Order: sequence, then structure tokens, then C-alpha cells
Amino acid sequence: MAIVLGPNRYGKAETRVVRVTKDGGTHRIKDVNVSVSLSGDMDVVHLTGDNAPVLPTDTQKNTVFAFAKKYNVGEIEEFALLLARHFVDSQPTVHHARVEIEEYSWDRIPVEDNPHLGLRDEQHSFVRNGSETRTCLVHSDGTGGEESVVSGLKDLVVLNSTGSEFHGYIKDEYTTLEETDDRILATAVTAQWRHRGTSSDWGRSYRRARTCLLEAFAETHSLSLQQTLYQMGRRVLNDRREICEVRMAMPNKHHFVVDLSPFGLDNPNEVFFAADRPYGLIEGSVLDDDAPRSPSAWK
Amino acid sequence: MAIVLGPNRYGKAETRVVRVTKDGGTHRIKDVNVSVSLSGDMDVVHLTGDNAPVLPTDTQKNTVFAFAKKYNVGEIEEFALLLARHFVDSQPTVHHARVEIEEYSWDRIPVEDNPHLGLRDEQHSFVRNGSETRTCLVHSDGTGGEESVVSGLKDLVVLNSTGSEFHGYIKDEYTTLEETDDRILATAVTAQWRHRGTSSDWGRSYRRARTCLLEAFAETHSLSLQQTLYQMGRRVLNDRREICEVRMAMPNKHHFVVDLSPFGLDNPNEVFFAADRPYGLIEGSVLDDDAPRSPSAWK
Amino acid sequence: MAIVLGPNRYGKAETRVVRVTKDGGTHRIKDVNVSVSLSGDMDVVHLTGDNAPVLPTDTQKNTVFAFAKKYNVGEIEEFALLLARHFVDSQPTVHHARVEIEEYSWDRIPVEDNPHLGLRDEQHSFVRNGSETRTCLVHSDGTGGEESVVSGLKDLVVLNSTGSEFHGYIKDEYTTLEETDDRILATAVTAQWRHRGTSSDWGRSYRRARTCLLEAFAETHSLSLQQTLYQMGRRVLNDRREICEVRMAMPNKHHFVVDLSPFGLDNPNEVFFAADRPYGLIEGSVLDDDAPRSPSAWK
Amino acid sequence: MAIVLGPNRYGKAETRVVRVTKDGGTHRIKDVNVSVSLSGDMDVVHLTGDNAPVLPTDTQKNTVFAFAKKYNVGEIEEFALLLARHFVDSQPTVHHARVEIEEYSWDRIPVEDNPHLGLRDEQHSFVRNGSETRTCLVHSDGTGGEESVVSGLKDLVVLNSTGSEFHGYIKDEYTTLEETDDRILATAVTAQWRHRGTSSDWGRSYRRARTCLLEAFAETHSLSLQQTLYQMGRRVLNDRREICEVRMAMPNKHHFVVDLSPFGLDNPNEVFFAADRPYGLIEGSVLDDDAPRSPSAWK
Repeated sequence: MAIVLGPNRYGKAETRVVRVTKDGGTHRIKDVNVSVSLSGDMDVVHLTGDNAPVLPTDTQKNTVFAFAKKYNVGEIEEFALLLARHFVDSQPTVHHARVEIEEYSWDRIPVEDNPHLGLRDEQHSFVRNGSETRTCLVHSDGTGGEESVVSGLKDLVVLNSTGSEFHGYIKDEYTTLEETDDRILATAVTAQWRHRGTSSDWGRSYRRARTCLLEAFAETHSLSLQQTLYQMGRRVLNDRREICEVRMAMPNKHHFVVDLSPFGLDNPNEVFFAADRPYGLIEGSVLDDDAPRSPSAWK
Repeated sequence: MAIVLGPNRYGKAETRVVRVTKDGGTHRIKDVNVSVSLSGDMDVVHLTGDNAPVLPTDTQKNTVFAFAKKYNVGEIEEFALLLARHFVDSQPTVHHARVEIEEYSWDRIPVEDNPHLGLRDEQHSFVRNGSETRTCLVHSDGTGGEESVVSGLKDLVVLNSTGSEFHGYIKDEYTTLEETDDRILATAVTAQWRHRGTSSDWGRSYRRARTCLLEAFAETHSLSLQQTLYQMGRRVLNDRREICEVRMAMPNKHHFVVDLSPFGLDNPNEVFFAADRPYGLIEGSVLDDDAPRSPSAWK
Repeated sequence: MAIVLGPNRYGKAETRVVRVTKDGGTHRIKDVNVSVSLSGDMDVVHLTGDNAPVLPTDTQKNTVFAFAKKYNVGEIEEFALLLARHFVDSQPTVHHARVEIEEYSWDRIPVEDNPHLGLRDEQHSFVRNGSETRTCLVHSDGTGGEESVVSGLKDLVVLNSTGSEFHGYIKDEYTTLEETDDRILATAVTAQWRHRGTSSDWGRSYRRARTCLLEAFAETHSLSLQQTLYQMGRRVLNDRREICEVRMAMPNKHHFVVDLSPFGLDNPNEVFFAADRPYGLIEGSVLDDDAPRSPSAWK
Repeated sequence: MAIVLGPNRYGKAETRVVRVTKDGGTHRIKDVNVSVSLSGDMDVVHLTGDNAPVLPTDTQKNTVFAFAKKYNVGEIEEFALLLARHFVDSQPTVHHARVEIEEYSWDRIPVEDNPHLGLRDEQHSFVRNGSETRTCLVHSDGTGGEESVVSGLKDLVVLNSTGSEFHGYIKDEYTTLEETDDRILATAVTAQWRHRGTSSDWGRSYRRARTCLLEAFAETHSLSLQQTLYQMGRRVLNDRREICEVRMAMPNKHHFVVDLSPFGLDNPNEVFFAADRPYGLIEGSVLDDDAPRSPSAWK
């Protein structure tokens, strides 16, 4: 037996950047959370505390802010690639960079037609659009090296109030669940999708993929959450040639029909108790069979 | 010295109800979180454990579900009043009820024009609209007794990327803050407003009050967050005669301009660090001087 | 109708200070979260944005850090009083200060007898003791003015696996709960207690009050959570003459006996499902009838 | 291109079980959170919604409760193995089970010597010990098949108030960090360790591994958090022959020395600001070079 160092990485997590871009009095904002993770020739750091190979996480944070100024923050996939390549390209000891970004979206506060003030020329007021968070996860071995781009979203909470059945499953000695041909199906979608390449119309691709997920959820008459998940992934792949693999995690957020019969009331799927825990959790992936293998893209 | 029982109340908190209403294949959903709190002739419960005056919290929960079926869940203020009056009117030992409701809003998933399926006749798919939460807080001494209705919202996150100054404040030996005539002003608004009476067009009143808050935030050139808060409350009172008092709590979510000069970059309010803690916290109220006093409305 | 400004206050919330005190190689740490809130002559701030009366929240934060150095952080009640008095005494426009502190506790990592290193002389390693949080809430109109000190704790999670009954309550048309003479009683205690004066052996008083709460919880054969709450408050008042009022909020964290009969198993209160929501919520106060009135102490 | 189903799994997450064991009036409790995930011959579930291969998550939950009764809940690793084997052994379509358990620890409330009641014979009162959470993650292909057991903990928050340096790192154009030979080192340890086999004295092994982590953290004079992490893993492997691999994730919870010089105060590492975000994140593994490979053990 000999004790050895295994896989390792380090970086600055959750640098919260808000980037304002100004076009006269009209402002745009990008609100992101950037997490960097680097790996490479770092054995001595662990074994002896020699920091010669280390680009400090503080410097990584500074770089994020400086790049936000120099290159602006456009599509998050692009900004992540820019950062990832910079760290690997500029530091001989850094062989690999992983950059993960979350983006929070904001809407303008619609004051255009407000007669109180002449605000038409000034647009600098925003309200957070608290819907799902857009995400990306980029890996890079440096410019010209192996790279992968995964886009995604999380906390897209959706619900079908009918159009969902569940029956025909295994019954064993611990089964008490009744079969049903009508239930609520609700979930909070976490989805990530891998791109074939490293350049794309990221914004358009995101909006379309999101629409595919939503539409497939809504349009699938569901016999199981697994079936719905598969249809959602399939819809994305069918619609977007630039995407080759979709991974999803979907909790089955149980909505139980309340038994109102003790009160002389029937309840034909009208009143539900929304439970917190436990919940079902369905995880699955859908991919093109010709998708290039890239297990490290998801790590 | 004699030890005595002071003010007390009890109830079922956070009953999560989803109510589906069906108009043919077109469904609507109301997604609410109901918290009931009762008080009255409860001394023996505390002193001796005699539960004769107690309507169990389990029964309160059942009542919430049964009422959701019998009376539907319309505007939350109305549903809260219905519940509060029921508890006081039906139980001699219950002299007072407090009902608090949070409502989470959902949008339809727009599948109307989708050619895949003939879904025009079926509308049962929803996506959670993760913006602010609508709230209400109702107190009732029973039908015909003293009552109050407070509506509100929380987690309305807003940001002005310019149009905010801060200067002219006290300087003492612990002052290091620089004065500024241009900063980001960002906050997560919690606002509650008290109605003069107990009937109103609650939905319309809510939407208008919300718009007043948003517009006043956007249109106020701010010299202090206090000033903005006051303008927001004032706008609501000016616009809505049915409302007599507004209370707000607004954290000053600091966005610090990052010093990029070490990297040879200027930063004219373009790149900000969004800090978590500490934060300023501004709390204030604005009211009509003829508003009836009702301190218990807010408890 | 005239729109007027109502009660208001402002301050810096959640300044996170860790104070290290060194006695040779032996260190002690205090880990606190300080929230300051000031009020006074602040109308112009709201009405016109004139900040002349404002001591900025940034300065409040600086003061917290500077005082942690100058006066150390001892008992949190003392540190809160020191800060509160400073703000009122030093600023004519500040008439009242409210200081709230949370303290997180740490244990030493016991390495004393470890043969690897001669660490007996160095004590600087700590592990967070993740139990309840100690709290205090201080109000001051300045040195010599009206003042109040409330100490407390939150998230003290306790459970009796028997010794709790619940029966004899009201039955109405919405009752389905079965009476029981044996159930789990579990809660997360939030308790606050008001001191008669503004000086005390705060640390000892806290430890004794906490012990009273725990022992009364454990030793009360409970017919209702209300009864338990009352006994807990009573025990504190009986034991601690320096305390004149106790307020508690105790969620009834339901543990439901799982029905295992479908699987041919009985379940004599051995297997429970710990539910999240809804939960009962019991709030109550116990006080000396000769306690000086001080409603503002709790705000 | 053909769209195909990739890896998938499903199960019931976060079943919250409290198991009471009674020895006369002396009770013991185990408080756990069980998450089950099954995979196997599930293609038709996704492709056509045919649930014939599905053991519903509701049944999984029932099984957890029934097993808690039949077999008690002892060491979580054992309970997880029991469940995992059951699901695979009993269902032909289930080829693999993953069971993850979190355990929350409780202390007795010490009322033994209390004169108020004769409680010596009754021990049923507990206070939650809010320290770290014990965890395990078990994979099983069924009795006699491939299996792995990973034990661990999370949220073990530790701090060294001195004995940590950081210097000698790369300087580039984005570097502003000053080198230091004395800083606070604080982290919240998440650690998992893989066992060589599937039987052990789990409780003793856990306690010893935990002690190794704590002691190595305390006793390492740290030149980098990576070095500390490595020493912690190394200590576990040196001490516990039954463990062959340790994986850790340790956020560098920054404690910044507050600059008090504007107030005429020096600050020789006495007053710190505890920051929330961003934070460093160090992830690494330490293993025996003769450890059997088992990448799936960690998924």
C-alpha cells in the first residue's frame, strides 16, 4: 500500500457579477454567477504546500471582473469559453479549466408610456424575472485543445393539471398505491444539453431548447414521468441539430388528491395537497447515437 | 411576583393547497400556502393541558381543504376572510382568527398554436412564474366584529442601474464611505398595504398597487433609499383610495463598483460585485392621516 | 386626506464579525452576526432625500468592526448595549437604536493529548457546534434613557419520544384526527426572555435559562404543546429572578406513526414519518405580573 | 442520426424516517433521510410509458418504513445495503440499486439527576445535535453481485485561527492578493470515504475517520488548503485499513482581516469579516494505490 493523490481541482466559486452596458440612457444588464475550477500540474501543492503552480482563486475572481469589463458579458457560453481558455493558455501549470455560469434574468420595468416623467429616453429600471435560471458548463484544455459546452436551465417548474396517468406497474407486498388514469404531474426541470461544437447562436439555441422542453411537457399525454422526460429530450434533439445529448433530472413533485369524503364532499381532482418530501426523482439522458463521447463534459 | 400567562395563539401553518378549476378542458389553478392562527379562551390549555377549548390544528387544515372545495379559492383576501370568520363564528372559545396566505403565480404554457396536437380545446399546462409572491394577512373577530385586511407582496426584486445618488450624510470618525452621484440601487421589496374596508376588487387593487410600486421605483431619481421607499408608498396611496397605509421593508442590496485600476482598466459604473451580506435595511410606513388606527392589523 | 410618513427605521443588517482573542498561543473566538437599526429625526430623508441626519449604514458597519477591536466582543448583550448607546449618544439625529446579535458557538478540537505534535501550548483549532443559535435584542434611547435587553435562542430542536398525549379537544364537522395518549412531541424552540435590567451575568443567565427550557421540556408530561410551552416559560421565571418575561414560538413538528398494517406489521409508536409542512405553530408568553411594561422591547 | 435513451435511474428521494427503539422506559432514536434510486430494464418505460418494469417510488417509500420496523435502523451503511439488495433481489427488472442515507444526530437531554420527577427510569427526551450530518452511499447489483459502500459526512465546519500561510503562488496581471504568513483557515468539510468491503464496524469506523479528519485539520500547519485536504485524507487512510479512498470538497470560507487603520486602530489578525461569496473551492481525493477501481461507487 502507498497513499497517492487522486483527481483534484480548485477554483473560485460563485463570483457574482452584474455587468451594465450603456447605449446613451438605455442600459442593459447581465447578472451572472461565475464558478471557475482549474486542474493540472498541482501535485506539489497537495504534497508539500508549494504554491508555485497555483493561480490563486483571488486572481481568478479578479480575472472574471476584468474580463467582464474588457470583453463585456454576452452569451454566458461565450464568456465561459473565454475565461476557460485564458486560464489554460496563460498558465503552464493549468492544463484544464471548468467554468460554470448561472444567469438570472431581468425584465425592464415598463415605464415608457408613463406621463409623469419624460422617461422615454432613459431605460435603466429592471425587475427580476424570477423564472428558471439559465446555466452553462464549459470545459477546456485550452485554445485548440479538447473542449465541451453544455447549456441548460434549472428550476423550471411546470405542472399539468390533467393528462397524466400511472398504472400497470409492479405490485409487491409493499404496494399500497392505487392506479390512476388522471393525476397532476408537476416537476422542477433541471436540464442540461451538450453542444456538438463550441460555437453557436447561443441565445437563440437556448430559447428554442427551452421552448422544446416546455412544449413537449405540455403536449405529452403522460403514462409515466419517465416517458415525459424522454419526450422532452427527444424534442430538443429533433429540433436542434447543434445539440447531441440532453440530461435531465426531474423530481416528481407529488400533488395528492385530498380525501374530502369525511366532510360529505367529493373531490374529482380539484383540491390537492402539494407535498414537499419525499418526492420521486427521475433522472435520464437522451442522445444521438452518433454523438461524440464526452463523459468529462458533465463533471 | 406571580407568574401569569401572556398573549398567545396557535394554529396550522403552511397548508399547501393547489386548487384546480375546470371549465371543460380549460383548467385554472390557484397555488396557495395558508397559515391559520387562533386565539381566545385558551388559558386552561396552557395551565392544565385541558384541551376542551382547542380546535386542533389538524381540523384547521381539513377546513382549509374543505373550503377550497366548497367555496373555491378566488382572491386570497376573500378566502382568508371566509376562513377567519368561520373559525370565530363556529367556536365559542375562539375569539380571534388570523389568516395569512401566500400565492404563487403560474402562467399558461403557450401551446395554442402548436401544430403537433389539437390542443386548442385543452388548457391544462402551466409554468411557474417565479416572480414576487402575493400575500395577504387578515384578522377577524368574527362576522360583524372588528376585522382588517392587509394585502402585499414579497421578493419583488428591482434595480436601477443609474439615477441614484448618496451624499450629504453625517461623517464621523468611523466614516470611510465616499459620496457618490451615481450608483446602482437594488432592493427586494416586501410591501404590505392595509385596506380601509373588508371588501374590494382585490385582484385589480393588487395589480394596480404593484404597478404603483414598480413605477415609483423606476421614476424616482433617488437621493436615498428612504426617499424611494416614501415615494413608492405615496404613489400607492395617491392612486388607490381603498388603501390607507403602506408598510415596506427594503434591503439595500449593495452592488459595489469593482476597482479595475490595478489592471489598467477604468470602470465607469459598468462592472459591479453583487454582495450578499451585510446589507442596508430600510423599513418605513406611509399612511393617510385619516386612516383608522389598527395596530393589530399587522401582527 | 393627507399622506404622512409613519414609523421608520434603517440600519446595517447582518454584519458578520469573527473576533479572535489571543492569550499566548491559546485563542478564543466569538462568531457573531450584528444587525443595527436606527431611528430618530429622519423625516427629511424620506420627504426630500436630504441625508443630513443619516449616519450611513456603511459607517454603522465600520463601527461594529472598530468596536469589536476596541472593546472586544464579550457577552453579546453587552456588546449590543455598547453599540446602541454609542449611536444614540454620538448622533443628535439618532434618538433610538435597536441592535440584534446572533452568536454561533464553536468547540475546541480536542488535540491536547495528541502525540503527533507538541500542541499543548497552542489552542487555535475549532469546530462549529451546530446546535441552537444564541440571540439578543437590545433597544436603547441612549445612556441614561429607556433601554431593554432581551436574550434568547433559536433552533433548539427537541423531541420527546413518549410522554405526550392529545385528546379532549373540540370535534366539529371537519374533525378527522384521532385522540391519542402517546405521541412524539417535537419542536424547534425559538425563545426570547426579557431582563428586568440592563446588567447581568449574561453568560450564566443564558446557560441557566437554556437549561430550564430543556429540563422543563423533558420533564413535562404533556397534554398539549401549549402546556409544555407554559411550563418551559414558568421554569425560566421561577429560576431566574433577573428575567421578567418569556416569549416562545414552537412549531409542532409532526411525526406521524406509519400505518404498517398493510404489510402485516404492527407499529406501536416505533416507526414515524417526520413531516415538513404543514405544521402546528404555538406562540405564547409567560410573565411576572409585576414585570414592567415594555412592548417596544420585542420589536 | 438516431435518438436513443441513455443512462437513467429513478426512485424515491428523501423519505424521512424516525425510528424509536424501546428498552423499557429507555428509548433510542435514529433520525434518517433515505433516498433510493433504481435502474435496470427500464427502456419501455421511457419509450412507450409501459410501467410493467416499474416498482413505484411509493412502494420504495413503504419498503423503507417497513424495513425500519422489521430490521430496525442500525448503522446506516447496513440499512442501506439491506434496502439496496432487497430491491435488486426481489425485482427482475431492477438490476442496480443506489441508496443514500443522511443521519442527523441527537443527544439525550440530561435530566437524570433532576429531583422534580423520578425520571431515572425514563429516558425519552432528546435535543438535536446540530453538528455535521453523517452520510452513506451504497451501490448494489444484488446479493452476491458487485457492491460498494461509501461513508461520509457533510457540514463539518472547522476553523484554525492561526497556523495557516499562503504565499509563493503565481503572480500575473490580474493579481492583487498580498502574500501572508498568518491567516484564518476555515472550511465546511464534505468528505466521503470508500470501504474496501461491505462489512465493517461501521459506527466505530465512522467515529475514527471523523476524528482523523478533525485532528489532521487541527495539526497541519497549512501552506495551502490543498495541503490540509491531502493531510486529512492521508490521516484517514493511515489509520483505517478498511478504507481505501477518500474524496473531499472543502470551500475556503474566507475571513478577511478588516482594515481598521482609518480609525487609528491596528488589527493584528483579531477582527475578521466572514464573507459569504465568492469562496474558494478545493476538491481532491486521496487513495491507496492498491485500491480496487470503482468509479461507479461515487455516482
